Amino acid sequence: MACFIGTVLYPHFEFKITHRDLLSRARCGLLTTPHGILETPNFIFCATKGAMKAVTMRQMEEAGAAIILSNTYHLLLQPGPDRVAALGGLHKMLHWNHPMLTDSGGFQIFSLGHGGVANEIKGKRSCIIPKTLLKIDEGGAHFRSYVDGRKHYLTPEKSIEIQQKLGADLILVLDECTPFHSSKSYTEDAMERSHRWSLRSFQQFSQSNNHLQALYGIIQGGIYEDLRVRSGNFVAEQEFFGQAIGGSLGGDKAQMHDVVALTCQYIRTDRPTHLLGIGGISDIWNGVANGIDTFDCVHPTRLARHGGALVYPEKNNGKEFFNLKNSRFVEDFNPIDENCSCYCCQNFSRAYIHYLFKVQEMLGGQLLTIHNVAFMVHLAKKIRDSIADGSFSKKIYPWEQE
Amino acid sequence: MACFIGTVLYPHFEFKITHRDLLSRARCGLLTTPHGILETPNFIFCATKGAMKAVTMRQMEEAGAAIILSNTYHLLLQPGPDRVAALGGLHKMLHWNHPMLTDSGGFQIFSLGHGGVANEIKGKRSCIIPKTLLKIDEGGAHFRSYVDGRKHYLTPEKSIEIQQKLGADLILVLDECTPFHSSKSYTEDAMERSHRWSLRSFQQFSQSNNHLQALYGIIQGGIYEDLRVRSGNFVAEQEFFGQAIGGSLGGDKAQMHDVVALTCQYIRTDRPTHLLGIGGISDIWNGVANGIDTFDCVHPTRLARHGGALVYPEKNNGKEFFNLKNSRFVEDFNPIDENCSCYCCQNFSRAYIHYLFKVQEMLGGQLLTIHNVAFMVHLAKKIRDSIADGSFSKKIYPWEQE
Repeated sequence: MACFIGTVLYPHFEFKITHRDLLSRARCGLLTTPHGILETPNFIFCATKGAMKAVTMRQMEEAGAAIILSNTYHLLLQPGPDRVAALGGLHKMLHWNHPMLTDSGGFQIFSLGHGGVANEIKGKRSCIIPKTLLKIDEGGAHFRSYVDGRKHYLTPEKSIEIQQKLGADLILVLDECTPFHSSKSYTEDAMERSHRWSLRSFQQFSQSNNHLQALYGIIQGGIYEDLRVRSGNFVAEQEFFGQAIGGSLGGDKAQMHDVVALTCQYIRTDRPTHLLGIGGISDIWNGVANGIDTFDCVHPTRLARHGGALVYPEKNNGKEFFNLKNSRFVEDFNPIDENCSCYCCQNFSRAYIHYLFKVQEMLGGQLLTIHNVAFMVHLAKKIRDSIADGSFSKKIYPWEQE
Repeated sequence: MACFIGTVLYPHFEFKITHRDLLSRARCGLLTTPHGILETPNFIFCATKGAMKAVTMRQMEEAGAAIILSNTYHLLLQPGPDRVAALGGLHKMLHWNHPMLTDSGGFQIFSLGHGGVANEIKGKRSCIIPKTLLKIDEGGAHFRSYVDGRKHYLTPEKSIEIQQKLGADLILVLDECTPFHSSKSYTEDAMERSHRWSLRSFQQFSQSNNHLQALYGIIQGGIYEDLRVRSGNFVAEQEFFGQAIGGSLGGDKAQMHDVVALTCQYIRTDRPTHLLGIGGISDIWNGVANGIDTFDCVHPTRLARHGGALVYPEKNNGKEFFNLKNSRFVEDFNPIDENCSCYCCQNFSRAYIHYLFKVQEMLGGQLLTIHNVAFMVHLAKKIRDSIADGSFSKKIYPWEQE
C-alpha cells in the first residue's frame, strides 16, 4: 500500500503509508526526507526562533524528538535569511541533523498583526485590534518589524526564497491566515487570494528547487464546509508534496474537531498531511483519526516553562496536564510519571521540581520541557503502535469513553 | 608521599598527595569521599539553591564537572533542611552522585546582610549598609529571611545539624565573614569568635558524625598576617579533615594574591585546602602555586548567563573571557575555542550564540554555561598535568610572563 509522490519534483522525498486503521482514516506512514525518515503520525516541536526554549538539541534527541520547525517570520527579522545561509542553513546552525520544517511567515504576520489570532484560531479569545500588520494586497503582506519598526513586504516569492535560504526539508506556501471572527465573504476572498499566492509560491519553488526541499500547500476555508471543499480540491490539483490544514478551525474545541473532520474528507489521502498549530492530546487523537500525519504547537514546551507537566488523562482525573507549581506537590516525592523513561522522571521528584519553580530556578522549566517532549514522543508512538496493531479505533481519545 | 588524615573521625575520607611541584607549593592530590575520588587541584561549581543555573546535572557530567556545592543559607530558607532530607539528601534530590560540598551558611548571612560583602572580599566594592543581618552575638547570628521576612538564628550547632541533613560530603564550620572595611580589632574579635564557633561546630559534628561527611575548619584573619598566623595555627590544632581560607582577602587582586600567599605559609600542608569564593583563572593559578587544592565561585556560570565565554588569555589578548553579546561576533562563524571539546564548541558558532543572546533565547546561556564548565574542568586538568610533569612552575599564570 505504498504511496509515492512527486518523483520529478521531489526525488529525495517519499511518503509511504505502512498501516491503515480499518475503522477510521488513521494511518501510519514513513516520510523520507534528506535528513532522515520520519515515522508518522508524529509531533513537530517548535524551535521558533531557531532554538528550542530551555533545552539543547542533544536533549531533544535524548528525549526522542524526531522533527522540529522554525518560524520564517522570526528568522526573517533576526538574524535574517542570509545570515542563516552563511551559517550553513538551519540544520547546521541549530545542529539538528533530522527532518525540519519551516512555515511561510504568513501565520505570524497575521497573528502578531491582529494580536491574538493564534488563540482565536483555537477559539480561545475574541478579536484584538491590528498591531503590526499594515496592509494585505494582491502582491503580499505589508507589516512592521516588531524588533525595529522597519517596514517589510512579504510576498509568496519572497517567502519561498527565504525558506530556501533557511534550508528546512519541508516548507510551506504563503497563505493568509484568517481569524475566526472573519465573515464568510472575507474568508472566501482571502482563500482565493491564498490560492493565487500558493500558485506563485509553487512557481518560485519549482524555478529554484534544489531537490532538498518539499513544498506543502495549505487548505483554507475557515469553518465553512463549501470553502474547505473548494480549497481541498484546489490544493489537490497542484504539485505539492504535502498539504497542511490552516486558517480558522472554529470557535471551540468541538468545532475545531468538526472542521478538521470535514476538511479531511476533501483532501488527498496519498499526501502527508499536517495540521497547523494544534497540540492538545485529545486534538491529536482526533486529528489522527481523521487522517492527519503531523502536528505542531508550542503548547508542550510553553506549558513546561510555566510549570505544566503533560500526563495521560487516565492517570490525572481526565486532565491532560497538572501544574507543578501547585502547593499539593510540595511533599510529593514521586516522579511526574513513574512509567516515563525521560531524564526528568527517572531522576527527579515532583517535590524537587515544585521547589525549583518556587525559587525560580530555570532548571524546573528545563526538566519539564524534557518530560513534555518525551511525553509527546511517547504519545505519537502509542498512536502509531495502536494503528499498527489494529487497536487504534477502540482507543480514539479513550479517556473520554472510559 | 601519601598523607592520610583522621582515620577515626573520617574513615571514608582520605587525602593523598600524589605529586608535588619542586619550585612552588603546588601539589596534585586524590581526595577520597563516599561519592568518589576527586582529583585536585579542582574547581567546585555552584549549585547555589540546589540546582545548577541553566544546565542539568547530566550536562555537568558531560562537561566533565567532578564536584559541586550548594549553599546552606539558601536551602535553610527554601525548601528547608528537613525537606531536603525527606527527598533523600542533596545527592539524591539533585541527582548528583559525585562529591559535593556545603558551606556553613555564614557567608551569605553576612554577605546578604551587609549587602555586597561578596564583592568586597574580592576588593571590588565599598561598604553598603546592613540589610538582613540583625545581630551577631556569642551564640550565633540573627538574621531575617529574604524570602518571607521571618527571623532566624543560626548557631554553629544548627549549621552542622542542617548540613548533616543536607548530606554533602564536605561540610564547613560556621564562621563570621568579615568584610574588607572592618578594623583590625573587629577582625580580631570576629576571628576569635569564629574560632570558638568552630570548636562548637566540631563538637556538634563529632557527636552526630555518621562518617559520611568530613568537616573543614576555616582560617580567618582578614588581611593581617599576625591574625592569619594565629588562625592558621588554631585550625591546624583541631581535628578537621580539611581547611578553608575565608574572610577578607584584600582590597584588590594583588593584595588577594598576597593574603593567600602569606596565609598558606601558616597552614597544614597535609590537609586538603579550599579557597572560598575565588574563581578567576589567574587567581586559581596563583592559589595552586601557594598550595590551594580546591576553589569555588559563581563566576564561570554567572558569566556565561551574561554572555561571557572563558578562554585562555593567550588566545584573547591576555583577557580571561570575551562577551558574545559584542557585535563583533555577529558574523563570526568560528566556535568559541576550536580546541575545546565541549558540546557548545563542537557544534555551534560564535555568531549563533551572539544571535541567541540578541533574541534572548535562554539556549545562549545554556550553551555558554556548558562551555565555561568545560573550560574550568580543562583548566584544572591542565594545572594537574603540569604539576605532574614538572612544568607547573614555568607556567604560573604564564600569560602574564610571556
